[in-house]
Amino acid sequence: MSVPIASKDRKARAREVLARCDALARFSEDANSLRRTFLSPPMHNCHAEIAAWLKPLRISPKIDGVGNLRALYQGAKLDAPRLLIGSHLDTVPNAGKYDGILGVVLAIALLEELEGRCHPFAIEIVGFSEEEGVRFGVPFIGSRALVGRIEDDLLEQRDWNGISVREAIQQFGLDGRKIPEAKLTHDPLGYLEFHIEQGPVLDKLDRPLAAVEAIVGQTRLALRFLGKANHAGTTPMDARYDALAGAAEWMSFVESHAKQISGLVATAGSIEAKPGATNVIPGEVRLTLDVRHKSDEKRSRAVQQLTGRGTEIAKNRGLSFQWSGLLEQKAVPMDDLMTREIEAAIRNSGCELHRMTSGAGHDAMILAERVPSAMIFLRSPGGISHDPAEKVLLEDVEAAIEAGMQLLDRLADSKEFLGRVYRA
Amino acid sequence: MSVPIASKDRKARAREVLARCDALARFSEDANSLRRTFLSPPMHNCHAEIAAWLKPLRISPKIDGVGNLRALYQGAKLDAPRLLIGSHLDTVPNAGKYDGILGVVLAIALLEELEGRCHPFAIEIVGFSEEEGVRFGVPFIGSRALVGRIEDDLLEQRDWNGISVREAIQQFGLDGRKIPEAKLTHDPLGYLEFHIEQGPVLDKLDRPLAAVEAIVGQTRLALRFLGKANHAGTTPMDARYDALAGAAEWMSFVESHAKQISGLVATAGSIEAKPGATNVIPGEVRLTLDVRHKSDEKRSRAVQQLTGRGTEIAKNRGLSFQWSGLLEQKAVPMDDLMTREIEAAIRNSGCELHRMTSGAGHDAMILAERVPSAMIFLRSPGGISHDPAEKVLLEDVEAAIEAGMQLLDRLADSKEFLGRVYRA
Repeated sequence: MSVPIASKDRKARAREVLARCDALARFSEDANSLRRTFLSPPMHNCHAEIAAWLKPLRISPKIDGVGNLRALYQGAKLDAPRLLIGSHLDTVPNAGKYDGILGVVLAIALLEELEGRCHPFAIEIVGFSEEEGVRFGVPFIGSRALVGRIEDDLLEQRDWNGISVREAIQQFGLDGRKIPEAKLTHDPLGYLEFHIEQGPVLDKLDRPLAAVEAIVGQTRLALRFLGKANHAGTTPMDARYDALAGAAEWMSFVESHAKQISGLVATAGSIEAKPGATNVIPGEVRLTLDVRHKSDEKRSRAVQQLTGRGTEIAKNRGLSFQWSGLLEQKAVPMDDLMTREIEAAIRNSGCELHRMTSGAGHDAMILAERVPSAMIFLRSPGGISHDPAEKVLLEDVEAAIEAGMQLLDRLADSKEFLGRVYRA
Repeated sequence: MSVPIASKDRKARAREVLARCDALARFSEDANSLRRTFLSPPMHNCHAEIAAWLKPLRISPKIDGVGNLRALYQGAKLDAPRLLIGSHLDTVPNAGKYDGILGVVLAIALLEELEGRCHPFAIEIVGFSEEEGVRFGVPFIGSRALVGRIEDDLLEQRDWNGISVREAIQQFGLDGRKIPEAKLTHDPLGYLEFHIEQGPVLDKLDRPLAAVEAIVGQTRLALRFLGKANHAGTTPMDARYDALAGAAEWMSFVESHAKQISGLVATAGSIEAKPGATNVIPGEVRLTLDVRHKSDEKRSRAVQQLTGRGTEIAKNRGLSFQWSGLLEQKAVPMDDLMTREIEAAIRNSGCELHRMTSGAGHDAMILAERVPSAMIFLRSPGGISHDPAEKVLLEDVEAAIEAGMQLLDRLADSKEFLGRVYRA
């Protein structure tokens, strides 16, 4: 049996994608692990490496005012509308090799697979400079620039060394005055992002790819149970106002309640008990809660029920219970047309389809404010991410390239997709 | 109605006891709160003040090799055996005025109430230099010296400033070579300690005094639940290995189990979740457990059941669970004869009797290794201790003086009590 050329090439291409992710992982701020934050020196090497890959395609990438790498592959006509494909090039500390980076490298692979063919749309690859929020505590700086949301306040944010965003831009050799030019001027046809799932869903289902229907909304709360600190030896069980015992009862409720509502996730991620001595009953507990769902209404109702139960538990125990909001973010639906085409492309490429929500935020969430946006998830073996053990399977990369090529063809043939640009 | 002289004097005496506790509280290492740790400079002032109170009784207190204040009130005969009465003079940071100190001040009040009368036993007042374990992390240094348990290791312990116990002794102006002389050479008849309850039991029962039948045994454990840290948004509820959710379930079990066993207290006092970020499922939780009961057997069984349940919970959740011992201390029964006499004295003084265990450790626990020991608790209003809000009621101090005087008379009349010295 002879292997078809195309299929053989695709496996080689997929191998190259993985090798390129390996190559970019060498550019790190830390000696023995990967950390490449916004506008850090290794980001220069990363840009240079990508430019070298794009050279054979005769594309010279540009770096915009906030450090996004932007590379244009021309369409059939000179003024063809654009389809954006991208993800982010920054990482968390002690990162894996694929979060963000894989989406950029896959976009380049698609351009290479086109072998010079042109579509009715130009393709602009975007390697976002900042998505993780590590350096300045503010995420999505790269994609915010494209939708015109870099406010002066943001530019004055400072990192741990006291360097502001504005100064970091200058130190990287960029001109901050050009930030407004980073904004999308012509309404693009759409934004497509490949990303690892960063969760266990596809791995458990044994499927390589998923179409993302929405990015979930989030509520983050800071909560506090207040009781009375007292001697752990001299205070009988029935005379205690133990803030930690109250918090424990509440955390168990959070878990069981979240399990009852399909698609809801609720997490107590951090906790502190004061005074925090072995022999003292905790008089105060501070903890955080993270609640997500694709339906804003279900999320709000869950938050109400969880905080309501906290108040009840506190009342029954003679404690007090307070909370305040840290973050409130609405769910972002992905573009229906593009997502339907993604589903068809996945199916046509021979994969079993899965449709899911993204529990994490992505650049697509920001772009969706102005551009029809869609995402394709690749399986994360073991559900591991933000860790050096982050993985992606060769066969899944191959499937992603196949589905991506199918998708480009389908979009090129879709009058509805091509027609939407004129409405903007 | 005329007030009997004795009763009137006793109220004045009780007022003086409270005033003396106020006076000693002025001698502090901190400007705006009370902290008087082992061999700290204000301990000199404290000793001088007490010496001034003892002067009218023609008693010159001595400071032994570890800084205990020791004052001898002679018995009827020159070589009369001794009854020790005392407590500690050191405090925790941000302390109240009565923890320890009250027991020493009350002992002096009893000598004054004797008005020169002698008993068949001499009375040695001991103001222990160290009970709280604040400065060197090791408690009971004062009472350990009396039972000959100051090991070389202990002398080499260092405080936060790098000063060793040995050096601290020298800096206080004492001669460390005299530590062996601090040890009890003649077997005393007994050790009596007045102490505030430091818990809410007497306050809830509305009783001023209690006879202490035992000091509870303690187990302290360091425990760890290990799961998998993961993304709080992308990991469905049924695919989590949440160490904090496991710890919460276990803490609720600890509380409900302890409530079912009379006299048992079990406390999770400190907790840490790692990595401890709002948006990350905790992969590891470290916490502590403190378990106390007057019965060593019941305490051991409880510890076994609590750790066993931890293992089960972990297993059901795909977590692992480990623990290690931080402290294992057997219960110390108080001397039965002395405690019976205390009960009779309390009853005869017109108070309703309460018998209870001490949930906290006290110098009596250490002395009991070599000396028949007993304790009288005074009510702690609100159960508050180790806090500037620590209180003691004037009427309870009066009751303690009355019961104490009755007790001295009863012991003086007890052939069984006086006879025990010859067995040693």
